[in-house]
Amino acid sequence: MRLIDPHTHINPHAAASATLADILGYHYYTELAHSAGLSRGQIEEPGIDPKEKVSRLIPWLQTIENTAQYSWLLQMCQEFFGFEEERITVENWESLYDRSLQKMSQPDWEQQVLQHSGLDQVYLTNDFDDPLTGFDTSLYVPCLRTDDLVFHLGKPEVRERLLQATNSEVSNAESLRQTISTLFQHFTGNGARACAISLPPDFIPGAVSDAAADEVISLVFSGSTPDADQLYKLSRFVFWTLADCCDQFSLPFDLMIGVNRRVYEDGVFQGQDLFDTRVSLIQYKELLNAFPRVRFPISVLAETNNQELVSYSWIFPNVITSGHWWYSNIPVFIERDTRARLQAVPATKQIGYYSDMYKLEFALPKFGMYRRILSRVLAEDFVGGRGWSAERAIGLGRRILRGNVEEIFGPAES
Amino acid sequence: MRLIDPHTHINPHAAASATLADILGYHYYTELAHSAGLSRGQIEEPGIDPKEKVSRLIPWLQTIENTAQYSWLLQMCQEFFGFEEERITVENWESLYDRSLQKMSQPDWEQQVLQHSGLDQVYLTNDFDDPLTGFDTSLYVPCLRTDDLVFHLGKPEVRERLLQATNSEVSNAESLRQTISTLFQHFTGNGARACAISLPPDFIPGAVSDAAADEVISLVFSGSTPDADQLYKLSRFVFWTLADCCDQFSLPFDLMIGVNRRVYEDGVFQGQDLFDTRVSLIQYKELLNAFPRVRFPISVLAETNNQELVSYSWIFPNVITSGHWWYSNIPVFIERDTRARLQAVPATKQIGYYSDMYKLEFALPKFGMYRRILSRVLAEDFVGGRGWSAERAIGLGRRILRGNVEEIFGPAES
Amino acid sequence: MRLIDPHTHINPHAAASATLADILGYHYYTELAHSAGLSRGQIEEPGIDPKEKVSRLIPWLQTIENTAQYSWLLQMCQEFFGFEEERITVENWESLYDRSLQKMSQPDWEQQVLQHSGLDQVYLTNDFDDPLTGFDTSLYVPCLRTDDLVFHLGKPEVRERLLQATNSEVSNAESLRQTISTLFQHFTGNGARACAISLPPDFIPGAVSDAAADEVISLVFSGSTPDADQLYKLSRFVFWTLADCCDQFSLPFDLMIGVNRRVYEDGVFQGQDLFDTRVSLIQYKELLNAFPRVRFPISVLAETNNQELVSYSWIFPNVITSGHWWYSNIPVFIERDTRARLQAVPATKQIGYYSDMYKLEFALPKFGMYRRILSRVLAEDFVGGRGWSAERAIGLGRRILRGNVEEIFGPAES
Repeated sequence: MRLIDPHTHINPHAAASATLADILGYHYYTELAHSAGLSRGQIEEPGIDPKEKVSRLIPWLQTIENTAQYSWLLQMCQEFFGFEEERITVENWESLYDRSLQKMSQPDWEQQVLQHSGLDQVYLTNDFDDPLTGFDTSLYVPCLRTDDLVFHLGKPEVRERLLQATNSEVSNAESLRQTISTLFQHFTGNGARACAISLPPDFIPGAVSDAAADEVISLVFSGSTPDADQLYKLSRFVFWTLADCCDQFSLPFDLMIGVNRRVYEDGVFQGQDLFDTRVSLIQYKELLNAFPRVRFPISVLAETNNQELVSYSWIFPNVITSGHWWYSNIPVFIERDTRARLQAVPATKQIGYYSDMYKLEFALPKFGMYRRILSRVLAEDFVGGRGWSAERAIGLGRRILRGNVEEIFGPAES
Repeated sequence: MRLIDPHTHINPHAAASATLADILGYHYYTELAHSAGLSRGQIEEPGIDPKEKVSRLIPWLQTIENTAQYSWLLQMCQEFFGFEEERITVENWESLYDRSLQKMSQPDWEQQVLQHSGLDQVYLTNDFDDPLTGFDTSLYVPCLRTDDLVFHLGKPEVRERLLQATNSEVSNAESLRQTISTLFQHFTGNGARACAISLPPDFIPGAVSDAAADEVISLVFSGSTPDADQLYKLSRFVFWTLADCCDQFSLPFDLMIGVNRRVYEDGVFQGQDLFDTRVSLIQYKELLNAFPRVRFPISVLAETNNQELVSYSWIFPNVITSGHWWYSNIPVFIERDTRARLQAVPATKQIGYYSDMYKLEFALPKFGMYRRILSRVLAEDFVGGRGWSAERAIGLGRRILRGNVEEIFGPAES
Repeated sequence: MRLIDPHTHINPHAAASATLADILGYHYYTELAHSAGLSRGQIEEPGIDPKEKVSRLIPWLQTIENTAQYSWLLQMCQEFFGFEEERITVENWESLYDRSLQKMSQPDWEQQVLQHSGLDQVYLTNDFDDPLTGFDTSLYVPCLRTDDLVFHLGKPEVRERLLQATNSEVSNAESLRQTISTLFQHFTGNGARACAISLPPDFIPGAVSDAAADEVISLVFSGSTPDADQLYKLSRFVFWTLADCCDQFSLPFDLMIGVNRRVYEDGVFQGQDLFDTRVSLIQYKELLNAFPRVRFPISVLAETNNQELVSYSWIFPNVITSGHWWYSNIPVFIERDTRARLQAVPATKQIGYYSDMYKLEFALPKFGMYRRILSRVLAEDFVGGRGWSAERAIGLGRRILRGNVEEIFGPAES
């Protein structure tokens, strides 16, 4: 079965890994090694050679052999680089490094990974000012990531990027709306399939009047520093405008709900964010009612929010369950969330999985983990529990894993 | 084993279904079909013929075959109407409709369902102004539902119903207390076994002084419109008065905690309510301490509140775990909640299940689902895990499922 | 495999039980019996004879035979007292009582229990003014419990105890800091291995300026009664000072997060506390960032907080997952929490279990319960799921159960 990965952080200009440092440098490993005792300075020393970086991380792997993340690493080394031992150690890593370097240096390495992993399409996470040129957008599908627009428009450099990308001037609600619409034209014109954003637990979307928006927009875009209330109003206005554009441009709006940024201030790169389970989809009541035609694939960061996600998808036609995000992306949570979704959400409204990967090699073990769990749930609950034929259960699995992706975001070019 | 269903929405004057539209019209199906794409207008067209309504819902069943709710439908069609195929489709539904109509048209259909389902008693949800006449209250047991009294006394029509039902005048705390007491006399005089209410996540019960209550009651009952604070004070006063009456009349007080009403404003009938997991039983601290003699069977809407329910039942003599409510009424949550309750709450303080049904046919598949789960937990954890004999485990199951219902609410007439 | 129990409430001067009343008097049994219907007056009658007390509790055991707590009782009676029946009843309890009394009266009973339970060390919970004399601190390891200091310094008797224990005077931030430092000297000088505290859900640690602290400290220590805000400030100042001392004295700081005290006001002794799941580790952000060198073994009372604990341990080097506390100490929650921790937290940062016991006999069944669950998880997820050898899985289990305790708190004397 061939896959579409509907949410990743792949750089389409360097999609596959060049060295093992690209794989072990993934924040899942650096943050676990740091958590186990390796200093950030060792990991993030400027100008460090890839092999040296790997050599520093290797000794710490023994502290995380129990983790799901380690099992991904092992599977990648086994399937891609022919690694045959059961542990990666200070004794055997160097030959693994050299062998993997040889593999990754082959000119068609990216194609090999795509092929071996069965990937038909890989969705991206593009900055709003990404030119979206120089890569095949039917393979690497653009998605408009909007965290900067919603939460960082108070920063001069973000405003500058916005004005340059759109060649526009902004002074009030109407002109900011126009500018954002220009971004949507650019993205949909280049095959974008979704708008996406990650949201902190305390964010509550809502409509903001033009009068109120005018005030803060003119203040901010004239270079003044907004206070927290003004910034929040601006965030809500921009978010609401994005939803409106998703409606106009028929783009699904991926909501990834629940992350607190920079909680651990001295953490490694991308290893600083955490969460607060005290968040509810009731905060999205006004949004979900206001935009009935916009499809909202929703991910929740905390597993304790999954039942709300299931129930809101069961009731709201425009809510779709989406994947198993970040701290919920480990087997014990995936299994339970998958069961609940299969038991209570229409089959057509579930996007089973996305990898969230930064490098192509990760799709294989991550989707592999999900597929094993999905297979077990289908076998136990549907074939065993309800007497379905294996074919019927597999059909449901295909829909969850791929069919819905194409129905919700659009078909893969073939 | 014969059952008592301690919480339903059965209309005792039309307890069984008349057509398949009564079954497929259950909000569990209309809301899922709507969620999957069927418009509310199609479902709720005024004056629509039952068969036409079913014909509109049928095509959408394929999108929800995975759900627990669909498995109830299938079981009802199989056991009650002799349906033998594995799916209900646009091809086969019409003969099912006709065959089921024939069955349901039999004059003793209600008795057949009661008999086949093993139901000895079915508890009702009666409006406070229900005359409670014209049906056998030893079979269909009255329960006083009090949402209107607590949350909607600000509406003129609710006050009017109250005054008419009790033939009284209300102007202050004392007269409102008297009026509510009159309702309890009427209900207990007609065999009522419980007072019941559903509560939003932000409600915090507490005593309200007569002076404070007098003010808002005289205001409201003289026809003025209360503000939100006044309304909340009135809600708390009425709620506290109900608890007091439960104490005086020795009636258990069913608390169903956690529902937000009308979250999805354009949803189908009864398909608009959702929840916010951010609620705690600590909000009921004052109540539980103030009424030690009142038994409170408590249901929580969110599964994440189950551990609190377990722990509060373990500590408070007057807290009883009750059923698996609504969005928690799917196997994955039932199983886990059942395990936790069996592991930590006295066996005498657990009401295993209620169907919450609107039509009699639903008791069979819903209790069936619960019994399969309960059996598995008893087999695995008690027979397997602790070496209990099968008889002993079954005895525990009987207590959870039926014995406690009779001990807490009163014995079935025999 | 021999054990270290890193958190108990053992009294080292009377570590083992003297009669069955010491075992059945454990709050887990008295509160469950009370919850099932036995009055507090019956349980806590002043001057009651131990055998009489047991005779009053025995009839209620039949209501809690389903609980995990009952299974501990049965195992203790079987292993320690040769009880061979499957239930403890009004018929057979007396011979059990007499036989157990005989056993417990043997002069080496404490040693027998330690030996049979495989206990090498038992960590204590010592009041800050405990002289720590008269027992073997290498067997019964002192830990400084600080609830009184943080939350009850507003009470004259607590201040008095503090001043007497340290022979000091307190009038401002600096002198209170000195006084607390003196406690740490006393405790570390007597082999203390940890500072520990239980915290309510609404507590948010943070630094308090000396100026602000001076004001409230001089007020309180001059005998004035502080208001709630002042008390909270004092709590935060003392807590922060404790963290600072943990840093200076290299002592781990056990945080047990989430308990509300005295929720059920008429409950039995130690059977009055409950919780509110609405708490987040985000409340500890400032603390965890401020003290990177202090190791914080963290327990959460609500199982719904476990994913946060897992994720914070995965990110913060100074956060360690610790045991399965109180209301989460039943199999269904232990199993799930164990799975999540093994799948996502470095193996070196997990303290598998502590008994929290008041009498030595409880280590056997409590650790037994945990070990059965840990074994199953290791067998299913690691041997079965990942193809590990049994030896390797057992090695991981040893680390979780004992190795980490020695690495984090210090080695057992041998």
